[in-house]
Amino acid sequence: MPQNIKVQETIRLPGGFRAAGEAIGLKRSGRRDMALLVSDLPAAVAGVFTTNQVRSATVKLDRERLRGGVARAIIINSGNANACNGPQGLCDADRMTELTGLLLGVPKKQVFVCSTGRIGIAMPMAIIEEGIGKVAAALAPRGGKNAATAIMTTDTKIKHATVALQIDGQPVTLTGMAKGAGMIEPNMATMLAFLLTDAAVDRKALQGALKAAADQSFNRVSVDGDRSTNDTTLLLANGAAGNKPLKPGHPDWGTFCAALNALALNLAIKMAGDGEGATKLVTVRVLGAKSDRDADLAARAVANSLLVKTSWVGDYPNWGRLMDSIGYSRAKVVEERVAIHYNDLPAVKDGVFAGTPLKQLEKIQHQKAFTITINLNLGRGTGVIYTCDCTEEYVRINYVE
Amino acid sequence: MPQNIKVQETIRLPGGFRAAGEAIGLKRSGRRDMALLVSDLPAAVAGVFTTNQVRSATVKLDRERLRGGVARAIIINSGNANACNGPQGLCDADRMTELTGLLLGVPKKQVFVCSTGRIGIAMPMAIIEEGIGKVAAALAPRGGKNAATAIMTTDTKIKHATVALQIDGQPVTLTGMAKGAGMIEPNMATMLAFLLTDAAVDRKALQGALKAAADQSFNRVSVDGDRSTNDTTLLLANGAAGNKPLKPGHPDWGTFCAALNALALNLAIKMAGDGEGATKLVTVRVLGAKSDRDADLAARAVANSLLVKTSWVGDYPNWGRLMDSIGYSRAKVVEERVAIHYNDLPAVKDGVFAGTPLKQLEKIQHQKAFTITINLNLGRGTGVIYTCDCTEEYVRINYVE
Repeated sequence: MPQNIKVQETIRLPGGFRAAGEAIGLKRSGRRDMALLVSDLPAAVAGVFTTNQVRSATVKLDRERLRGGVARAIIINSGNANACNGPQGLCDADRMTELTGLLLGVPKKQVFVCSTGRIGIAMPMAIIEEGIGKVAAALAPRGGKNAATAIMTTDTKIKHATVALQIDGQPVTLTGMAKGAGMIEPNMATMLAFLLTDAAVDRKALQGALKAAADQSFNRVSVDGDRSTNDTTLLLANGAAGNKPLKPGHPDWGTFCAALNALALNLAIKMAGDGEGATKLVTVRVLGAKSDRDADLAARAVANSLLVKTSWVGDYPNWGRLMDSIGYSRAKVVEERVAIHYNDLPAVKDGVFAGTPLKQLEKIQHQKAFTITINLNLGRGTGVIYTCDCTEEYVRINYVE
Repeated sequence: MPQNIKVQETIRLPGGFRAAGEAIGLKRSGRRDMALLVSDLPAAVAGVFTTNQVRSATVKLDRERLRGGVARAIIINSGNANACNGPQGLCDADRMTELTGLLLGVPKKQVFVCSTGRIGIAMPMAIIEEGIGKVAAALAPRGGKNAATAIMTTDTKIKHATVALQIDGQPVTLTGMAKGAGMIEPNMATMLAFLLTDAAVDRKALQGALKAAADQSFNRVSVDGDRSTNDTTLLLANGAAGNKPLKPGHPDWGTFCAALNALALNLAIKMAGDGEGATKLVTVRVLGAKSDRDADLAARAVANSLLVKTSWVGDYPNWGRLMDSIGYSRAKVVEERVAIHYNDLPAVKDGVFAGTPLKQLEKIQHQKAFTITINLNLGRGTGVIYTCDCTEEYVRINYVE
């Protein structure tokens, strides 16, 4: 029987998890900058990572660790990306997992590590090592909020959510935290997300479910079109709920996947709305494309067009820029077929202005959140991207040291 | 014997050409907004146009006109793009050429038309028609500067240049004017360039030479990565110099091509340096790519990265963002092989910081113009893109109405 999936805006660690987030001195602001997530039981782990050819030491290490399939902890720092640091960067990332493992009494191979911050600066290992001791000492079942705070960089809002569901008739929790695609002080955009559940899940099924959820959520967020060297999403399932391991065929597998998708989408939309300097959350939907791939290409061209994103800062509904950007996307476009709506109001019909009074369209673009729907009228492909406007504040954040 | 090609920063119309630029009331500022370029002899014409699938009426019409191969005039307005205006837009563009032809006594098929401005606004034809009469009355052999002024939109500087050369021992002039890839008030980026010569040139050879010159100049400029619906470059050769028609095999063909390339590159670099809100001209060179195509992809990824472009506003040499952007380009990149220079100073060696004092790199990034050279050390492919920083002023220009 399908369950009603309701996402709560809180964080509540599932059974068998503890967390901490402390200020260890990496951020000049003195804010929390190191987090530790721990499962008291060995947890099945799934991960998805940046597709960038230039990767942080932490991404390189975690991709290796993922082969083992078991996680006990994730140690995370903000304030330094540990990318482009050569062999020393890999040593430092490995040392972070080793030290965390020693303090927790678990093998380093079961410890994952994430970093976010400026590229190409050596990791201040003395501070890091002392910091790991500090977060390990602060671990608590209610430490989720501190951890979610410690992974923030230029995020203006904490990002977490929880779904309660029933598996085999037992209560199960799925909780998640994320940091947005903003930059750390004047640094590199990085998206990190950590999802934790006390459900027991088959490892291979877990990886498939995470990949599917990420494709419909985190991979559909665009703030500035720049893909980071450090993007990482990890999902841990420690089985503390005692259910029969979930996988396709289990009566509650569909429920679990729906909950995971809802959680990931909730966090992804929070990231888009809290992009650097953003004042508006914009959902760009493309329908009627020749293929889903074409729809995705057209939606991304719109969401990454600097001319479109800057036009959204003001209220003037510059639909001509939408036409322009789909026109140069690699999606097939026939100008005379295009229809565009701002929420429910038509702006373009058959490739020309639809005649809706501009004042009405302006009212929509003035809102904190609105949807642009583009129908290419060429086929059945659909796609969606969650994005935001590009303000003067975005520029300022990214060059002021 | 190869001639020394020297580009002068002036405009000087070649023999048999006249021009005018007047204020006809399209721009709210009251500035010149219509230009007319006329050849008193039928001129061979070549053209290159935007690759956008959404095209202005003027681009559609000019592409047709180009088949005739002969031009007598180009009528140009700024203040309205005449794009996404449906069949009426095409009628209006055709009417502009018809009226110009009537006033000049030449067939409309030999009149080209260009527009630049906001998309999707009906052309105010009463103003346009009166304006055409006004510019036609103002035609003069020294009208080049007024014409170059009238095609400007948010350009802060007039863009023109001239090369004097010898063909068959006779003096020949090649002159050009351009408007930059900035936007008109809060409108769509458009690049227009008009190149005029009194040399006689074979029509097919002329098209080949223009395509080659554009590929190394106008097609290597990126201000914001947005391709316009209206981009147009036209080259007219009217043969007033009386030389034997130039084509491959003519002893001065190489000289003519070199002069054309130099002129186009001069105008292209002026566009990059005068991008909207730009304070710095940045040349991005990629060497050692697996192919020229890969070099081009890597250079464009850097030049179009919002994170890179905003970092250039300040002086901090954020080379990590260069690494990040080449990493997600579709060019093959092996992190450990990458070397990056700021002018002559190494910033990255073997994928990690090269150790040059940051203060020295900062001094380079502080300059009004500098070059980033990225060696991928994977092959022999090379490429270059001319670009600029992305400032708060860019954002402001593009949403303030």
